[in-house]
Amino acid sequence: MGDLILTTYDWVPDAPRGFVRDLRVRWALEEAGLLYRVASTPFESRKPEHFAHQPFGQVPWLTDGDLTIFESGAILLHLGALSDRLMPTDPPGRSEASEWLIAALASVEAASQPWSFFMFMGAADETPMRKFFDNFLFQHRLKPLEAVLAGREWLAGTFSVADILMADVLRLVDRFDGLADYPACKAYVARATARPAFVKAHADQMAHFAAGDRARAT
Amino acid sequence: MGDLILTTYDWVPDAPRGFVRDLRVRWALEEAGLLYRVASTPFESRKPEHFAHQPFGQVPWLTDGDLTIFESGAILLHLGALSDRLMPTDPPGRSEASEWLIAALASVEAASQPWSFFMFMGAADETPMRKFFDNFLFQHRLKPLEAVLAGREWLAGTFSVADILMADVLRLVDRFDGLADYPACKAYVARATARPAFVKAHADQMAHFAAGDRARAT
Repeated sequence: MGDLILTTYDWVPDAPRGFVRDLRVRWALEEAGLLYRVASTPFESRKPEHFAHQPFGQVPWLTDGDLTIFESGAILLHLGALSDRLMPTDPPGRSEASEWLIAALASVEAASQPWSFFMFMGAADETPMRKFFDNFLFQHRLKPLEAVLAGREWLAGTFSVADILMADVLRLVDRFDGLADYPACKAYVARATARPAFVKAHADQMAHFAAGDRARAT
Repeated sequence: MGDLILTTYDWVPDAPRGFVRDLRVRWALEEAGLLYRVASTPFESRKPEHFAHQPFGQVPWLTDGDLTIFESGAILLHLGALSDRLMPTDPPGRSEASEWLIAALASVEAASQPWSFFMFMGAADETPMRKFFDNFLFQHRLKPLEAVLAGREWLAGTFSVADILMADVLRLVDRFDGLADYPACKAYVARATARPAFVKAHADQMAHFAAGDRARAT
């Protein structure tokens, strides 16, 4: 392992604060107790150097010595291999953590993200597409996930990077009150976000963007 | 490694044939030259045993001895660790393959899947939500991906599980003619799907569901 440097935007508007995906990486680093520092890249006028690290011009990316990694899910898998606090130690548990991390992205966030766009843009409830995406998220994703989370504290037996990703995905659903009918999902989010590592990661992200406000004001 | 058994539906309607996600796993298994067999689970009336293997009631899942894994992305990462034909052998290359596999799911498919739902349901071109999802896919995902693929044959240097996933995601965009303005993406899909392992995997999936037709007819 080399020096760990997490790069995020220097500033973002108010709406995404607390939800920018560097939070997932901060959270994992805090859980693992790994030393790291945070670097900034301009939110406005993204440069070729930014696209060289993150081809879609997004954040975060992590550098670990000579290695540079983008995609929060890939960064969490990388960190999971560095610390037993982020992955179960037995091979079946590690496999379970990987599959649930991927499920959080490819099954749950794939449904929650379009739904959240509809909510964010205030799309009318009665349009066929809105109904389709509501059904995709609630019937096909949260209903079965509710059954899973009613029976376990964490997705892979012990707390892992899968929970960081799934809880962060569900947090955005909860923001638009989408977990009202899913008490086990809601309790899971509350359990995950009560962890000191989340609380510190969240406060650090808010402070980072508040510093960005001050830099812009001068 | 134990016996490898890939489970998919016994039958699906015509529209998704050739695109059911067991194809990604068949493709990887064929590339690696690993022995496997294919098992079926009912498409209609999905049973608790199905949900025990795949909590969202979807396919595929893979059993490897005592291990059972769902999510095509997680299965590909598992197979990638079993065969050098599916992952570069150097650590930076392996990391790059993992990050691009996750990017195919969390960045590209996250945008292409909602767009394909709009296309599939024939949503009108001029609605604000349709325009939003068009822009999400084309401007924010395919445009930067086009720049990446214009400069390399495969995402992680040599052919890997990342290419299986990305090419399969782009194939569905191409089905609705969404790659017309992205010649490097289109050439990449053509290059990937010309591989003998893809051709066999695709033919095998079509034959599997054709057998399902015959079973229903008797």
